[in-house]
Amino acid sequence: MRLPSVPVALSGKRFVVTYRIVAANEEEARKRAVDLAFEQTVEFPADLTPAGDISDQIVGHLESLTRDGAKYIAKISYAQESAGSETTQFLNVVFGNSSIQPGIRVEQFELTDAMAALRGPRFGRAGLRTLLNAPSRPMLCTAIKPMGYGPAELADLAGKFALGGIDIIKDDHGLADQSFASYKERLLRCTEAVANANAKTGYKSMYMPHISAPATQVMERALLAKEAGAGGVLICPGLTGWDAMRMVADNDEIALPVMSHPALIGSFTASPDAGLSHYAVYGQMARLFGADASVFPSWGGRFSFSKEECASIVRGSEDPMGGFASIFPTPGGGMTMDRIPEMRSVYGNEVIYLIGGGLHRHSDDLVANCHYFRELVEGMA
Amino acid sequence: MRLPSVPVALSGKRFVVTYRIVAANEEEARKRAVDLAFEQTVEFPADLTPAGDISDQIVGHLESLTRDGAKYIAKISYAQESAGSETTQFLNVVFGNSSIQPGIRVEQFELTDAMAALRGPRFGRAGLRTLLNAPSRPMLCTAIKPMGYGPAELADLAGKFALGGIDIIKDDHGLADQSFASYKERLLRCTEAVANANAKTGYKSMYMPHISAPATQVMERALLAKEAGAGGVLICPGLTGWDAMRMVADNDEIALPVMSHPALIGSFTASPDAGLSHYAVYGQMARLFGADASVFPSWGGRFSFSKEECASIVRGSEDPMGGFASIFPTPGGGMTMDRIPEMRSVYGNEVIYLIGGGLHRHSDDLVANCHYFRELVEGMA
Repeated sequence: MRLPSVPVALSGKRFVVTYRIVAANEEEARKRAVDLAFEQTVEFPADLTPAGDISDQIVGHLESLTRDGAKYIAKISYAQESAGSETTQFLNVVFGNSSIQPGIRVEQFELTDAMAALRGPRFGRAGLRTLLNAPSRPMLCTAIKPMGYGPAELADLAGKFALGGIDIIKDDHGLADQSFASYKERLLRCTEAVANANAKTGYKSMYMPHISAPATQVMERALLAKEAGAGGVLICPGLTGWDAMRMVADNDEIALPVMSHPALIGSFTASPDAGLSHYAVYGQMARLFGADASVFPSWGGRFSFSKEECASIVRGSEDPMGGFASIFPTPGGGMTMDRIPEMRSVYGNEVIYLIGGGLHRHSDDLVANCHYFRELVEGMA
Repeated sequence: MRLPSVPVALSGKRFVVTYRIVAANEEEARKRAVDLAFEQTVEFPADLTPAGDISDQIVGHLESLTRDGAKYIAKISYAQESAGSETTQFLNVVFGNSSIQPGIRVEQFELTDAMAALRGPRFGRAGLRTLLNAPSRPMLCTAIKPMGYGPAELADLAGKFALGGIDIIKDDHGLADQSFASYKERLLRCTEAVANANAKTGYKSMYMPHISAPATQVMERALLAKEAGAGGVLICPGLTGWDAMRMVADNDEIALPVMSHPALIGSFTASPDAGLSHYAVYGQMARLFGADASVFPSWGGRFSFSKEECASIVRGSEDPMGGFASIFPTPGGGMTMDRIPEMRSVYGNEVIYLIGGGLHRHSDDLVANCHYFRELVEGMA
């Protein structure tokens, strides 16, 4: 039996999500798109859904359906009120249940007014440039590792990287709070080592400890980072949940730059016919949830993102999106210094180059290697 | 330059993760597996990684490599200390960076001692059966919806479902804290409606509100549910982060059954060559992070899990795993009453049948439809 209709108080404002749909023909694509509009909202059979406002306004509207090669692009709009003011529910409307359906991929989304009213990236490109005293050049990032090193060895590396002029020295994302390098001791030692190096060089290098942790401990780690004088924090939203990153970025007591890392979220972009686009995950979602820099594996390294996918991440990090600041694409994942000229063709100057292991290779003098990296990048800026 | 070696204090205990690897031949498979063992730990080139404990113990060990059809099964062990005692870091070691590499899928994982020492599901199958006074039969679940209904209409539905003998009446996962049905008012009204129905019927139906929310509000929602006398909570770990579910399940003040919902985590199982297996996601991860019941889309509905994948979820929900309780597979996603006999062949009696829209179809009398559903299931138990 069709459920009774009720009036729903709605503003009439809607937001649009762009989906790529696999279908054999336009008729099937249209059916899939309409099913999607129900799935993401009422999750109820069309013939049983209450008539009136719920069928007319709450159920998604298929705004357009166009062909794109062998697939279809459907733009579906949703009532702002279906997402309300919660980031988690916004993601739920964009791609909750449909994430389980094959052949549906989120290409791009618009923000609701409530999402656009969030702070988003606190610093963004301009803010990070000011903090790092780098008005226009690309910035440099590396990671302290490997897992197994203690705080003393990691701090020694951090200090050398800072002496060599690396702007952002982050924990490897594999460093958590292990017995061999507790979060707190690592934090204190590395912050001190970088500060000491800055005092010598005049650079403004910053250390970013990795604060991914169980739900009850993320804020504690972030506050410890602030207290210790760390320059920012690294977090893996795939491990902590996306909104844990926003919580940290948004906290005025913390007020530190946030770098996001892709651990565990690779599955989102693993298939061209499912998940979300690179643009949406590493650009839009990173910004919505407050990252100032978004790490991803660049083409040509140990991972498999294509050059075009990397270029789409650049667009996602700077395309207009509410009033949100642009953020820094931070390509890494097996990058080496000899690839900088090629990377520059896609990333230009608005980038943080992340080189990990490759920084140890140029010569036996790590500080000299960092100088070489910095001069290479500055020379091309 | 190879980094200097340091001794690492390690217990020698290791845990094993089983990966499925796409490779053209055994040589390539072995190379990929060894790369994986580095990627998930030191994330450093082998020739630069410190010799001694770090190369010998921290770097993952390839324990075995076998052929499985056109792919390869690699079992890799990791030092317990690499994961430490944090759920987030455990996931990171199991599948952090490798989630971004194509052709690698997590089939199954063992627990570390620290993970096995977690509570896991607080109630599990036995506990839920006691609460619901259902010693051996399959249990019934439905969802109140659609989005757009207010607390009064939703509570009316909840009351009818309870009168009809549905064991678990959950919010649809699309209900959050929207203007048309705030979390709090919906919670109070629906809890009351179900309690009133129970007073008439003698059944022990429970209402489970949906508590997915931004990071700072999940605990607040769960505590409100407890205060209001709700029977349990529904949460989407894909929206909140997995450990937010564990945090709620583990909290002794809340101490309510937890049902997990797959919103946004479909991408994990979208490709047979990437992500994690159905067994790992809907069985093992659900248990590790404290769910007592794990919702997933059954074969033959609106989604595309196969019968075999559903059977693997059943195994993941009950295979020995630390000292964790077995949990209830909760197949839904477009199920209808006429499919119960076929579903029974896979799920037996250890199941919660989740029927949403289909429950409205049998006749115009919703309470009668629920009775029919219950009698159908009881008759086959």
